[in-house]
Amino acid sequence: MGEVKHLCLVKFKEGVVVEDVLKGMTDLVAGMDMVKSFEWGQDVLNQEMLTQGFTHVFSLTFAFADDLATYMGHDRHAAFAATFMAALDKVVVIDFPVVVAKPPPPA
Amino acid sequence: MGEVKHLCLVKFKEGVVVEDVLKGMTDLVAGMDMVKSFEWGQDVLNQEMLTQGFTHVFSLTFAFADDLATYMGHDRHAAFAATFMAALDKVVVIDFPVVVAKPPPPA
Repeated sequence: MGEVKHLCLVKFKEGVVVEDVLKGMTDLVAGMDMVKSFEWGQDVLNQEMLTQGFTHVFSLTFAFADDLATYMGHDRHAAFAATFMAALDKVVVIDFPVVVAKPPPPA
Repeated sequence: MGEVKHLCLVKFKEGVVVEDVLKGMTDLVAGMDMVKSFEWGQDVLNQEMLTQGFTHVFSLTFAFADDLATYMGHDRHAAFAATFMAALDKVVVIDFPVVVAKPPPPA
């Protein structure tokens, strides 16, 4: 069993300062060793029919499924999640073991 | 400007053989050099309130935004996308430059 990802697609409520949310998330995961890496992004193609209003992606990577479970059950995650969810108009969350079907070429 | 990801969250129609779709996508990207890597996964936590019925994630990584544009405009992508979309009950697609907020630790 390899890496597991915790992926959130979100649409923020109007008036939310996305930079503040990002800072909160970055600070949170910086202090939590069970989070192997964290990347995010903002949609750039704006194909409304396909994005369905979702604008941002947040992706946490864990080396093991147990690390994800530890993270999800952690008080600091619970506290942040409450604030995070309150800032969202829409959200979809998927947790999945990563299957690499085409690996990147050697660097 | 770094990597760009093309991310699809999907819910398949009933009766769709997911393995066939996966094989089609794997074959497609294996033959297209502008696709740097391809990974996918199936949701394992089944938190219906959070997944909203989405079950699978497909993530293509491109080294440059131009590679994504070339891929999106390619005949082979168009042909596959038509078949792929027909197999879906729901889909959200997001295209985003990757911001690495917490890099993975050195191997």
